[in-house]
Amino acid sequence: MSVPLAGPPVADARVDGLLLGIDFGGTKMAIGVGDARGRLLAHRRLPTHADQGAAQALDRALDLAAELLAEVGGPLAAAGVASPGVVRPDGIDLAPNVPGWERLRLADAVRDALGVSRVAVDNDLNAAALAELRLGALRDADPGLVVGIGTGVAAAVTVGGVVVPGHRGAAGEIGYAVAGGPWPGTMLELDFSGRALDRLAADLGVPGGAAGLAAAAAEHPGAAREALRARVDEAARHLVTCCLLLDPQRVVLVGGVAGSALIRSLLVDRLNEVLPHRPDVVLSPFADDAALLGALMLAREAVPAPR
Amino acid sequence: MSVPLAGPPVADARVDGLLLGIDFGGTKMAIGVGDARGRLLAHRRLPTHADQGAAQALDRALDLAAELLAEVGGPLAAAGVASPGVVRPDGIDLAPNVPGWERLRLADAVRDALGVSRVAVDNDLNAAALAELRLGALRDADPGLVVGIGTGVAAAVTVGGVVVPGHRGAAGEIGYAVAGGPWPGTMLELDFSGRALDRLAADLGVPGGAAGLAAAAAEHPGAAREALRARVDEAARHLVTCCLLLDPQRVVLVGGVAGSALIRSLLVDRLNEVLPHRPDVVLSPFADDAALLGALMLAREAVPAPR
Repeated sequence: MSVPLAGPPVADARVDGLLLGIDFGGTKMAIGVGDARGRLLAHRRLPTHADQGAAQALDRALDLAAELLAEVGGPLAAAGVASPGVVRPDGIDLAPNVPGWERLRLADAVRDALGVSRVAVDNDLNAAALAELRLGALRDADPGLVVGIGTGVAAAVTVGGVVVPGHRGAAGEIGYAVAGGPWPGTMLELDFSGRALDRLAADLGVPGGAAGLAAAAAEHPGAAREALRARVDEAARHLVTCCLLLDPQRVVLVGGVAGSALIRSLLVDRLNEVLPHRPDVVLSPFADDAALLGALMLAREAVPAPR
Repeated sequence: MSVPLAGPPVADARVDGLLLGIDFGGTKMAIGVGDARGRLLAHRRLPTHADQGAAQALDRALDLAAELLAEVGGPLAAAGVASPGVVRPDGIDLAPNVPGWERLRLADAVRDALGVSRVAVDNDLNAAALAELRLGALRDADPGLVVGIGTGVAAAVTVGGVVVPGHRGAAGEIGYAVAGGPWPGTMLELDFSGRALDRLAADLGVPGGAAGLAAAAAEHPGAAREALRARVDEAARHLVTCCLLLDPQRVVLVGGVAGSALIRSLLVDRLNEVLPHRPDVVLSPFADDAALLGALMLAREAVPAPR
């Protein structure tokens, strides 16, 4: 169970003062304040209202962050921000669930609003993977695969105790995977995300969106379960390919949709049916907080901005 | 173009004397003798005759190795062996194309036959990836994805200048990926390997196996090209998922089937159609010798067996 992992030097990760973490999601945002070791002292959630654009979401998140910091009290040492998509200094790519995100200078906005120079920004699944590596289910597993099934679908890869960013910072963007049938077929994210399952529930006349659909399918076999299984099968197909490519020791599921025991069990059954080596598949110990804790880890490991 | 890569310390890689490399394939074997830096001095190929079992193939390969070493002259410093499948000290898993492989103690057999203590054994695609990292198309690219389309289908992943072995040494075994349609669909290797395309050619009445099929499809549109395109589409689907997961800077194609310009072009067109970031896809500069050169690199970096 003990794998030597080569993380960044611990000395680099020391901070004095409070850490701030912000996790932007397509549906919800989470703001947390932690101590110097990254332990969460206070946190709160608020809706993103993605349809109203990125600027209002960021403003509200920063207001709440200032409020939380004042409540906890103490100097702010560093901030970490997790966001869907591919995070560049001057904008965010591949985050179709939050209009306006592509032109957002996230790190600069946090620096300016909160007067802190140490700010690190990364993809939300990469942040979740960092939290799993430092505190959670990947502390003793290598390689690791983190699969996020929430508003969207994405993944993160860890090798040797490090989150693999990819050449353009886009590793893990499996939501763009293409389904079977005539080329190119639909995108995975349009089939299996929380949004996709919300639409499927509505089409089937099942109330309560994705969660309602999972509950209805768990209760009795029938149209809801078969429809859900077909979506799970398509997702399983891509996760099989990911597991074959990486041979992970552990697969960690995060996000709202992954919270459904039925969906997890359908998915794991499919993986076990075809993979020559069955990976250990677990639900993140952090439930919905993996990316938020990852944002705190990003803060803890952030270096000051060059002046 | 210059990426700092963290390979093993160069001091560990120094040897005096000759290096031997053996590449076992499902169809052909290649034996090469190289100098201390891994430059090929002499090499030869011979058929595997896989249907006659693993032992006779290994025996013939070792006889030819001894012959080649005598021809070149000089002391043997180390040997490297590349094989399909997951290479363990006491056998090889997941190599269905070579019956009997699963009980082969490959490193021991080479040690005993050639009287050399430094012997390293690895998967053939991992060896090819090592050759690309040290000498070829991945010297300046990170992450790297090597995709082998020969007798079988497999891949290898490089991150930070190192070939990622995976938890059970099985990273890259994408031949087990499952096709679209009703679950689970066929395995990728049964659809798109050299063997699969040989069968497809026979079914279509096209002479010359996979190579003949590719040539017929290249010459004029029609049934052969459409049948080939459907197979390429299924492979492309899985490679899209691999590229999304890893965000490689470069994808290197190796193996006989990848030698067809038409197949490469159909594949690259599909990747470019759907991937948000187009990877650089190249044919290995080593043609069929990537795994053989990788076996020489394995030899160069091998450590003596514990006594």
